[in-house]
Amino acid sequence: MLLRLRTGLAGLDYDAILGIAKELGYEHRFLDEARTLLELRGQPRAGARGRLEENAAVAQVLDSSDAPELHERRGRPDTLVRVRAAAFGRSQASLIAGPCAVESSERLFEIADAVRAAGATLLRGGAFKPRSSPHSFQGLGTEALAWLDEARARTGLGVVTEVLDPRDVDRVAVVTDVFQIGSRSMGYAPLLQEVARVGKPVLLKRGMAATAREFLLAAEYVLAAGNEQVLLCERGIRGFDNTTRNVLDVGAVAWLKKHTHLPVVVDPSHAAGRADLVPALARAGIAAGADGLIVEVHPRPCEARSDGAQAVSYADIARIAAEARAILALDGRTLSSLQGPAPTPGTATDDNRRAPRKEPACDVR
Amino acid sequence: MLLRLRTGLAGLDYDAILGIAKELGYEHRFLDEARTLLELRGQPRAGARGRLEENAAVAQVLDSSDAPELHERRGRPDTLVRVRAAAFGRSQASLIAGPCAVESSERLFEIADAVRAAGATLLRGGAFKPRSSPHSFQGLGTEALAWLDEARARTGLGVVTEVLDPRDVDRVAVVTDVFQIGSRSMGYAPLLQEVARVGKPVLLKRGMAATAREFLLAAEYVLAAGNEQVLLCERGIRGFDNTTRNVLDVGAVAWLKKHTHLPVVVDPSHAAGRADLVPALARAGIAAGADGLIVEVHPRPCEARSDGAQAVSYADIARIAAEARAILALDGRTLSSLQGPAPTPGTATDDNRRAPRKEPACDVR
Amino acid sequence: MLLRLRTGLAGLDYDAILGIAKELGYEHRFLDEARTLLELRGQPRAGARGRLEENAAVAQVLDSSDAPELHERRGRPDTLVRVRAAAFGRSQASLIAGPCAVESSERLFEIADAVRAAGATLLRGGAFKPRSSPHSFQGLGTEALAWLDEARARTGLGVVTEVLDPRDVDRVAVVTDVFQIGSRSMGYAPLLQEVARVGKPVLLKRGMAATAREFLLAAEYVLAAGNEQVLLCERGIRGFDNTTRNVLDVGAVAWLKKHTHLPVVVDPSHAAGRADLVPALARAGIAAGADGLIVEVHPRPCEARSDGAQAVSYADIARIAAEARAILALDGRTLSSLQGPAPTPGTATDDNRRAPRKEPACDVR
Amino acid sequence: MLLRLRTGLAGLDYDAILGIAKELGYEHRFLDEARTLLELRGQPRAGARGRLEENAAVAQVLDSSDAPELHERRGRPDTLVRVRAAAFGRSQASLIAGPCAVESSERLFEIADAVRAAGATLLRGGAFKPRSSPHSFQGLGTEALAWLDEARARTGLGVVTEVLDPRDVDRVAVVTDVFQIGSRSMGYAPLLQEVARVGKPVLLKRGMAATAREFLLAAEYVLAAGNEQVLLCERGIRGFDNTTRNVLDVGAVAWLKKHTHLPVVVDPSHAAGRADLVPALARAGIAAGADGLIVEVHPRPCEARSDGAQAVSYADIARIAAEARAILALDGRTLSSLQGPAPTPGTATDDNRRAPRKEPACDVR
Repeated sequence: MLLRLRTGLAGLDYDAILGIAKELGYEHRFLDEARTLLELRGQPRAGARGRLEENAAVAQVLDSSDAPELHERRGRPDTLVRVRAAAFGRSQASLIAGPCAVESSERLFEIADAVRAAGATLLRGGAFKPRSSPHSFQGLGTEALAWLDEARARTGLGVVTEVLDPRDVDRVAVVTDVFQIGSRSMGYAPLLQEVARVGKPVLLKRGMAATAREFLLAAEYVLAAGNEQVLLCERGIRGFDNTTRNVLDVGAVAWLKKHTHLPVVVDPSHAAGRADLVPALARAGIAAGADGLIVEVHPRPCEARSDGAQAVSYADIARIAAEARAILALDGRTLSSLQGPAPTPGTATDDNRRAPRKEPACDVR
Repeated sequence: MLLRLRTGLAGLDYDAILGIAKELGYEHRFLDEARTLLELRGQPRAGARGRLEENAAVAQVLDSSDAPELHERRGRPDTLVRVRAAAFGRSQASLIAGPCAVESSERLFEIADAVRAAGATLLRGGAFKPRSSPHSFQGLGTEALAWLDEARARTGLGVVTEVLDPRDVDRVAVVTDVFQIGSRSMGYAPLLQEVARVGKPVLLKRGMAATAREFLLAAEYVLAAGNEQVLLCERGIRGFDNTTRNVLDVGAVAWLKKHTHLPVVVDPSHAAGRADLVPALARAGIAAGADGLIVEVHPRPCEARSDGAQAVSYADIARIAAEARAILALDGRTLSSLQGPAPTPGTATDDNRRAPRKEPACDVR
Repeated sequence: MLLRLRTGLAGLDYDAILGIAKELGYEHRFLDEARTLLELRGQPRAGARGRLEENAAVAQVLDSSDAPELHERRGRPDTLVRVRAAAFGRSQASLIAGPCAVESSERLFEIADAVRAAGATLLRGGAFKPRSSPHSFQGLGTEALAWLDEARARTGLGVVTEVLDPRDVDRVAVVTDVFQIGSRSMGYAPLLQEVARVGKPVLLKRGMAATAREFLLAAEYVLAAGNEQVLLCERGIRGFDNTTRNVLDVGAVAWLKKHTHLPVVVDPSHAAGRADLVPALARAGIAAGADGLIVEVHPRPCEARSDGAQAVSYADIARIAAEARAILALDGRTLSSLQGPAPTPGTATDDNRRAPRKEPACDVR
Repeated sequence: MLLRLRTGLAGLDYDAILGIAKELGYEHRFLDEARTLLELRGQPRAGARGRLEENAAVAQVLDSSDAPELHERRGRPDTLVRVRAAAFGRSQASLIAGPCAVESSERLFEIADAVRAAGATLLRGGAFKPRSSPHSFQGLGTEALAWLDEARARTGLGVVTEVLDPRDVDRVAVVTDVFQIGSRSMGYAPLLQEVARVGKPVLLKRGMAATAREFLLAAEYVLAAGNEQVLLCERGIRGFDNTTRNVLDVGAVAWLKKHTHLPVVVDPSHAAGRADLVPALARAGIAAGADGLIVEVHPRPCEARSDGAQAVSYADIARIAAEARAILALDGRTLSSLQGPAPTPGTATDDNRRAPRKEPACDVR
């Protein structure tokens, strides 16, 4: 450990920081005469970095090599997260697709069939929706969970759904295969701790103004509870230009792949905020190294109760999957797939795709 | 209501949006031949704007004058929020001060005495701390709540403390005079709804990447539950320059004072992230029109368990109060104050301020 | 000097950085075994920091105390910049006001009279306008310069006008008292160097995404040419929320006042982008410590050829000056003023202000 | 044209805006009773949008379909920009590579050979460097231009170099095949106008806080002068997280490909700011639809006089070209290439690549 201290500390301030170092089991020495460079030696201790850097005497942690954090790669291979037919990490990637919110059983089942046919292995769909306004649609809750359960039984797709309230964790756990933590909740410790406890995989969305380090520290809450099944999801950060809803931070994707052993998933839908740009952002995410995609799909966006403008069509999700497969193949990676026909022959989708549309899709695409 | 629709909508898309309009009780007509300008007429309905603007067919709400939202000023005078000796709004402003986190009863009582002497009417102090890292200090919880209760009894200061978990609302409600909602939790509906239910005032911090409208919609969650006692707290937004921790958005303060009837409080401590800039930001906030300040104070920052670098000294908090009073006086406003001596003569503070310091304060200030 | 080097440098990389250190006249030693902490000792040399930190082997400059830069305060009092009746720095502040662009001689003279009456000592007005679109009004150029010259003769106000092209510096120099460098040109070295050469004061606007350090380094171009008459102008930085045009960075104002000896001016007009918020931002800027204001004024914003939406009325500029005076007085500062009546009794303004308006001002205010 | 006007305009304000509309040759009518929706009909006129939207009475341009701007696609195929063996647009993409700054003839020629071997068709290299600090290396100027000329003669690579000062345009024009406009100069009209006049292709870098529209309006300066040979270069925008130097805005790349007929080039080097992430960002840029890449290359980054930390090795540039080719092939696009051996057999590069390195590269990569 190498710390840079603030200049002009008083004796009591040195006592404070050296007291913490001692408590953590470190020996110390100062490297410079001005006593601003403090070297600590001892056994590596997880959590030590956090304890030290929160102290006001510490200006910066210059070297944390023996204060490891659980998310750090430090030579580890990718953590492989497997969920039913899906796998994320190493040479495997997966496609998660579905509606923003679960709106009705019929629509959910139709979309599930379509995304399965396109190549998804996991079905997303919101039962509890985090919304900016109290007057907006908040999700159908328990009823939606039941339909997700049924959709899984019909298609074999695993279920990814958001949990918003720590008090809902247990009932969501009954149904979901992967807990989604939304970007608004990324840094929300009570929820992270509650979800971590269950032991199921967690898809953690990056907060829209979270640094890469803050994102990893949120993951650390799950890891610290003994659950290593974390999928980091880059979904665009807030920028100054509203041409797109958010800015997909492909540099963070590339950096995360180097810095952590956890798999990274890209959400091109929330990044773009408009369906016509989603395929390009999906390709960019995979090309930057992502281990998967999570994409919003809706056959009639103007009937969607939330985020319709960014939902892609059945044709587009099939194209997104095909393009992902092709880019993955360039470096020997594959997109996971469900083998054989769907458990339930819900072929509405295929009919739908073959039938000529009577009306053009609305141009929010 | 005047809506701009996307171009190229299909017949079913028009059906969808006109169906919602009808359901909300509006008559409609299109103003242009291309059917992109949709005028709706009817009785004003709270929540209508949210229902309409979440539909993918709607590109923009051009005029929402008959879809009022509860936070909108629309000619209303300031909502005056009174908490014990403090008042926020109209011609009154108040100072909230105290430690970032409650660390011990002794330190809390000492700080409480000091900020009371300086001119604060409310005491802040965290029992539950939202932290980026699971390895950082998370607050002392219930024990801290008890000390806050005791500090109030000793000083007459009202208590402002953060609640983080919806499951903690009831036990925090027993002690606190004002619920603080932290910036990480601003958009977190389960907590907002739970807190709103109690009926006590809510100090709602702006999320670090929340737009002014998103901030007001978070407040709308509390207002929609029938609780009008909301203090909007601008605490700095995330910027690209780490010279300061955040960027105090004084433009938003000025805009909020025009656009909403709710009082606005400025937090110069989190905006600056460094004690030496806090007095200037406090002045700027009041000058921009804020109805109060919330400031972190600590006698020995390097012993603080969180955010020490931004905690000001006892001398500084007294100066901040004096400067606020002077600027408020320029437009006929006053800073609320506690009358008479403190219930308990905890005069450690004054002694402390009079005694020569043996060592200089650490220069994190 | 204390540098942190990257880890894993090769022998040739050490040769490169140590070669530069030697060339700059520094002795070196490494403080740690891993050779990442490089201490350099020698005579302070301006410019050394730049040479060292641009090298790829250098991760960070930890201490630059003996590589001074010309803008740094290092205990110096404020540089006082005097321009005719205006003064910026120490206990003096000044108001610069006028139209965004010079549009006609009549309007310019009318506005000049009005801002003089309100309390301005310098007149702003653009002859060369930096515009986003080639199809927008680019300014009247030389003709406008002549009118500015005449306005000065009539009112005694000094002239502040932007120079955009290095080839225009000499002809602008004939007329202007202060060169304005726009935020788009802040980091544009050829212009900074050309302007610095003339020796007249320079009002340097911060680039909309420039860090405080980049801002100071732009000033350093002028200082390095031997011209110390630099006014740093904070005019709002680009943010994610278009409620206001930009975000006035009052934290940077406060930081700059500590870190540099150069005076700081605030431009509330470009920060707000809307006239109704300009007075509040003007107050906030002065309260944060600014040594002056530059404000756009127009009697009929909808006739303005640029930036009309942010131009304040004659009544508002008088109010802004009065409020600035009151806040300045709180810490013993004063707003500079022109003594006595205007050289030319151009009293159209006063008539205008007294006469009842036949029509209300347009509500872009 | 459909304009939304501000509410509460006075009669004179309507006169102002209707006067401009008439002057532009438009007929007008109001669509609503409140006279806020103003429809203009007439012959399409380039530049009309700019004239109208700069007026303070105009809140927003809702429909600009008959006020075309020159950069708009409006059904046009890609403008194909050809420079020697390079081509950008339609199904062709090209690689521009070379050092940040030209440092010596030997190094330049060595790098030119290496990037040619890797697959570049254009050589980048700065003779005039825009630098944050006046104390930093400003480029070798005319001497560097001569070496670039010689490098072209030796390798057949076209030359891309930045011009910074409008007064340098003519002497740069003698040597360069493509004028580079740096991100600091993007919105700098005098330079854009001067460069446009020459008629050679212009590589226009996006300003680090420019919106996509502002970027296109900067291009419009060149187009409006009759020069259609503009390459739009996305090089990362400023973000809040310094994990990477900038945030590569792949969403803007995708949007630009839809919205304009001009080709788009991605600069992964300035986006990443660190060599280890450059290949991933190069892939992401191509996958998002870019028509080319511009990449900084240096064999010994720690000897580079600027931006060494983001310069990739010879091995990396070859890999970047190969990966770009593979991704381009997925949608039938190709990377342009120089046929046959280099005019001058400068095979130092190949030797260099084959020879075992005596020392590892410095880890700034």
